[in-house]
Amino acid sequence: MTYCVAIKVNEGLVMAADTRTAAGVDDVRTYNKMHTFEFPGDRVFVVLSAGNLATTQHVLAQAQRDLNDPTATVNLRTVRHMFDAADYLGQLSVRAQKQVTQQLQGQYSSLNVETTLILGGQIQGEEPAIYLIYPVGNCIAASPETPFLQIGEIKYGKPILDRFVRPHVTLEDAARCALVSLDSTMRSNISVGPPVDLAFLPRDALKVKHSLRLDLDTPYYSQLKETWARQLENAVRSLPKFEWELQPQLPLQAQTQSQQPQAQAQMGVQTQQNGLNAAAQMQFGSGNNGNNGSGGQSY
Amino acid sequence: MTYCVAIKVNEGLVMAADTRTAAGVDDVRTYNKMHTFEFPGDRVFVVLSAGNLATTQHVLAQAQRDLNDPTATVNLRTVRHMFDAADYLGQLSVRAQKQVTQQLQGQYSSLNVETTLILGGQIQGEEPAIYLIYPVGNCIAASPETPFLQIGEIKYGKPILDRFVRPHVTLEDAARCALVSLDSTMRSNISVGPPVDLAFLPRDALKVKHSLRLDLDTPYYSQLKETWARQLENAVRSLPKFEWELQPQLPLQAQTQSQQPQAQAQMGVQTQQNGLNAAAQMQFGSGNNGNNGSGGQSY
Repeated sequence: MTYCVAIKVNEGLVMAADTRTAAGVDDVRTYNKMHTFEFPGDRVFVVLSAGNLATTQHVLAQAQRDLNDPTATVNLRTVRHMFDAADYLGQLSVRAQKQVTQQLQGQYSSLNVETTLILGGQIQGEEPAIYLIYPVGNCIAASPETPFLQIGEIKYGKPILDRFVRPHVTLEDAARCALVSLDSTMRSNISVGPPVDLAFLPRDALKVKHSLRLDLDTPYYSQLKETWARQLENAVRSLPKFEWELQPQLPLQAQTQSQQPQAQAQMGVQTQQNGLNAAAQMQFGSGNNGNNGSGGQSY
Repeated sequence: MTYCVAIKVNEGLVMAADTRTAAGVDDVRTYNKMHTFEFPGDRVFVVLSAGNLATTQHVLAQAQRDLNDPTATVNLRTVRHMFDAADYLGQLSVRAQKQVTQQLQGQYSSLNVETTLILGGQIQGEEPAIYLIYPVGNCIAASPETPFLQIGEIKYGKPILDRFVRPHVTLEDAARCALVSLDSTMRSNISVGPPVDLAFLPRDALKVKHSLRLDLDTPYYSQLKETWARQLENAVRSLPKFEWELQPQLPLQAQTQSQQPQAQAQMGVQTQQNGLNAAAQMQFGSGNNGNNGSGGQSY
């Protein structure tokens, strides 16, 4: 499995990928899933891949070969638009899959040679763009409403992107969000694993400005993970209280004791309750003060 | 689609479910997926369901019929252990599926009549327990390391549970976490939808102590959603800065200006940088001060 994400914000593009490749749980390796084609000052492409590794390598090798072939009708140096680049990679992908399928002649019918790609980059004079290239060769761009694309194991890491990533977010905040998204996925699916690759393509830089590989023992990454865990715990604890937490009842035990200890016990409990009440009501906010009794949302 | 989650903490059980049922996007309805069998003071069961609605209703109807049948060899009132209750429901589920499949006689082979259940509850003298009952009738309990079970669209809402839910967490914090988990899922998958049902089964209460139905316009739920969105945004913004954010370079433009404005511009920028630097370094923590230059984690 794999998890890759590309984010497009006003400031440019962020691309991120894990590096775990598995052919079964007994054959796990580390592979780079982020591939850069850079022509500084003119154009830059970053390709992320999920799916069959052989197909992916076939596509990348052919793209490289076309660059060095003066007779090639199209290559990444000559395409005019980002869409054309995505379309070109899609065609290479379909061709690579067809070649294997024809060789198989119906054998190994369960073998999946599909690959799904994300292309991110910018060509001079054009907007930066990200495209998701499907195994059948067609592609879609990201929308301004949902300015990110994911491939591979996409679900675990999607909520944080859905909530946070908007076009106005800075490139660095988008990158931190991508790292959290990857971290959440790696916690929930062991077939997605570190180290993580991260590339920054600021608008009009026409090159990869920063490229990081973050492993579990990289100080920045371990600090990010630790900070996120702590912040999330604080976030859950700061959520509004339920009504019975705001007006806790006296423990039954205190009421069955003799008069004197009961009074003391009640006072002790009362003080504690008032403290809890004040704090809890602050978090509950105004406008709910009349709604703390039983009933309310219960049914 | 559906999303249900059951959490077991030291204080007891929390059960939560969405209410959206869909037979295609053009046939969406609201159905209760949380079903309670309560024998206060003796035993309590809450069943959550995902999958074929007819199969689920068949299982529940049969369980109810067995309760009213004095000749029934086993029912929810007579089972001795929580495992036996889970096993009993699993058998009812298999029987319901078999009946439909036999009636079909090979027709509608694409029809999926499976249902997956979660049983949560407690029998007097036993520990509270949660079981996930698979369509084939067998079941698993939650583990102390991962004290929750999910059915349906489980991935979007899993990271927050993975990070936060531990046995020592309070019942109310576990419930808030379940609500966040449901909310994240509903944002990412429209086939999971409000209102949300939430049940509290404190240890040894042997009944459902609180039962809430929360819709988008329920004040508590809308406040929880708003608080969570704000807290999450703060959490992302408090993550450690990248090295180049800690030592930002002067903008090139300032350097091309004449001597006097350049000095002013630089001072202005410098002040701003120092402010950013101080705040950023605080978040970056100690021990990284020697690592702010270029290089470092870049490759």
